[in-house]
Amino acid sequence: MSESLLQRAKGVRDFGPEEKIERDRIVESLKQVFESFGFSPIETPIIERYELFASKFGQGDQSDSMKESFKLKDQGLRDLVLRNEFTIPFARYVGMNPNLRMPFKRYQIGQVFRDGPIKLGRYREFWQCDVDVVGNPDVSADTEILMIAQKVFAKLGFEVEIYLNNRKLLNAVLDKYEINKEIATDVIISIDKLDKIGVDGVVEELKNKNIEEAKAREFLQILNVTGTNEEKIGKLQTSLGKIDALQEIEQTINLMPNQENIVFLPSLARGLAYYTGNVFEIFLKDKNVMSSAVGGGGRYDKMIGGFLGKDGDIPAVGISFGLETILDVINKTGISEMKKTVTQVYVLAMGEENMKSAIETADQIRNLGINVDIDLQNRKLKKNLEYANALEIPYVVIIGSDEIEKKQITLRNMKDGSQKSIKPEEIKNYLN
Amino acid sequence: MSESLLQRAKGVRDFGPEEKIERDRIVESLKQVFESFGFSPIETPIIERYELFASKFGQGDQSDSMKESFKLKDQGLRDLVLRNEFTIPFARYVGMNPNLRMPFKRYQIGQVFRDGPIKLGRYREFWQCDVDVVGNPDVSADTEILMIAQKVFAKLGFEVEIYLNNRKLLNAVLDKYEINKEIATDVIISIDKLDKIGVDGVVEELKNKNIEEAKAREFLQILNVTGTNEEKIGKLQTSLGKIDALQEIEQTINLMPNQENIVFLPSLARGLAYYTGNVFEIFLKDKNVMSSAVGGGGRYDKMIGGFLGKDGDIPAVGISFGLETILDVINKTGISEMKKTVTQVYVLAMGEENMKSAIETADQIRNLGINVDIDLQNRKLKKNLEYANALEIPYVVIIGSDEIEKKQITLRNMKDGSQKSIKPEEIKNYLN
Repeated sequence: MSESLLQRAKGVRDFGPEEKIERDRIVESLKQVFESFGFSPIETPIIERYELFASKFGQGDQSDSMKESFKLKDQGLRDLVLRNEFTIPFARYVGMNPNLRMPFKRYQIGQVFRDGPIKLGRYREFWQCDVDVVGNPDVSADTEILMIAQKVFAKLGFEVEIYLNNRKLLNAVLDKYEINKEIATDVIISIDKLDKIGVDGVVEELKNKNIEEAKAREFLQILNVTGTNEEKIGKLQTSLGKIDALQEIEQTINLMPNQENIVFLPSLARGLAYYTGNVFEIFLKDKNVMSSAVGGGGRYDKMIGGFLGKDGDIPAVGISFGLETILDVINKTGISEMKKTVTQVYVLAMGEENMKSAIETADQIRNLGINVDIDLQNRKLKKNLEYANALEIPYVVIIGSDEIEKKQITLRNMKDGSQKSIKPEEIKNYLN
Repeated sequence: MSESLLQRAKGVRDFGPEEKIERDRIVESLKQVFESFGFSPIETPIIERYELFASKFGQGDQSDSMKESFKLKDQGLRDLVLRNEFTIPFARYVGMNPNLRMPFKRYQIGQVFRDGPIKLGRYREFWQCDVDVVGNPDVSADTEILMIAQKVFAKLGFEVEIYLNNRKLLNAVLDKYEINKEIATDVIISIDKLDKIGVDGVVEELKNKNIEEAKAREFLQILNVTGTNEEKIGKLQTSLGKIDALQEIEQTINLMPNQENIVFLPSLARGLAYYTGNVFEIFLKDKNVMSSAVGGGGRYDKMIGGFLGKDGDIPAVGISFGLETILDVINKTGISEMKKTVTQVYVLAMGEENMKSAIETADQIRNLGINVDIDLQNRKLKKNLEYANALEIPYVVIIGSDEIEKKQITLRNMKDGSQKSIKPEEIKNYLN
């Protein structure tokens, strides 16, 4: 193969042991949290029908996401697409399984694909971790999703703030100020930037959308309230009355055992048009480390029903965690000690005649639940210690004729170089 | 969405909770075994460059595997392919990382794709689990791979036989009988069927390849030896002399702590042309349950080097386990009890006023490491018990005003219907 063949496709990555061990650790942490709340895994395929994603209930065939999706055909010339998200396949799955017991709580973790321009931190193949519940219309389900987010980041050791808002609040404000429904989504997208570009920035954008400055300033002032969550709710009630949106936010927060890092942010919108109730977005407390969201989601009661051609709502709420962003944070903060290997103990034989005993001893240690690598090439001691050292394997076990005779092993602590003679079955007591 | 949109792409599958929990369990078992031998995970992308797979060192652009691969282009019109196996990307990875410390031991688990005809048990998107070591030329590495296979199936509760042979043995026989090198691969593929179609069947095929019947019968008789592994090796030494192949087989077996289910099968070839030494294939002892192999692999010392344009060998040996075949066996034998949910305890509040306490109690139990689902809709007791029953959740916790006052919970065993009043922090002692 010529050197030029030694290339990956554009925009995709290899993960060597160090990175993959860490990725697996994070996925395992998320999995544990999701399952601790009774969410079960499902797997939908990577290849989906083009028609499903491009349908008007999905992304629409003229949307940016469809333009940036990988398209292909099978040998029967059927139009296919590599999934670029999990919600549309989930809606299809719910539609194809009418006997699912509700509420249906599932999570899905895996690769998604986008054929877009490559920027820092943007890849063509990346992992997404979604957890959703379908069939529960009550905000208590939203509370549970927020509790999951708290647990996930507590487990990862991230200090986060969870911003919470409700789409109905934004709709109520736009209604009150008689903003044309046709531009409502555009206006909401501008309002969403309040936290980033400030009142003046948003006013400028709204003026370009033909909204009078005075009117814009008035409703932005309402949304730009300060104080505790309770104070903000109080102030907004004064401006807007006891509307559903505020009640939902209040209830969602009040049901939480720990309300500490929940921040009611009345301007939060999250781009997607399909949200119908609470929306949430999670940021590191220290935005200098990472300014993008590490997770986000919301309630989307109309999407699945619309998708399935049903008249009524099929209530759903969920959240998505970005594995790549989480890893960027870990790499930047060094919050986790990356491991170069899964091996805990490295076994080596002194002399080829002792190889079989070494293999047996390695197996004996393995049966104690310890990950054991072994030198099968009978290399020199020095070379072996270098290998163990380079891979940061914490312990080496040496098997020579002496050891075999005494039914013992020599255990070397690679950190401090100390050695002990012990029985192989006792090894667990000596490992950190 | 019209009903007709509620379809998957042809040849791919959804896995609901029950199936996905089981798939995850098996993958986790394999992972644990691989890691217990010091193999670390890596991840290469699903999308690869077409040129890599189609190159003459890969599958060749006219091969059946390339014809049955999914092809696509990115927006830059680069030719891409969805990976149909892990060995070629692994060779690329080794080539792109010249500083890898040898031996390099990795495993990879994930989806592979083939755009072929759909038959029973053949899918277009399926999972493969590969473990390989590169950089160790000694048969001790082959021994380790066989030990991994033993551990994997012992863990899954499968009774298997591991067939072992060496390509050099087949080459030696063909040399001795002066079979034309050009038809050697074809002849080897016929010999591989000895176990299935018997001597007469193979002779028939060989006659069609212009090999005289007498000659064919002679060398098939040599390969068709019976007895223990030792006896077979002895008989073949009588016919062929003390050739390398027989020594390698002897050494590979002799290093194994457990040689019980290792069967030397002199006719075993395994199709692929790239094997250079030991080859192995694993079958259930009871072939009535599953007649296809549940795993297979071998030594391929020339492939990676050829791939990378290197002169010398880059020794490698590995094995691949088929997740789908393993699952077929489990489904057929009922050897594992499939779980409908990950939930261990289902919490319900008697009355909406107790919902917050129920959420807090659920969280308290969760913090003990137990998976807890909770009724957030305050449904009737009967409906809740039906739900827990249908999902086969083993325990239900009931939180009413009485319980809250006494700081206790009512724990119901769903199997026998018995109930107890206990403190929430004691729950672990009462769960099976």
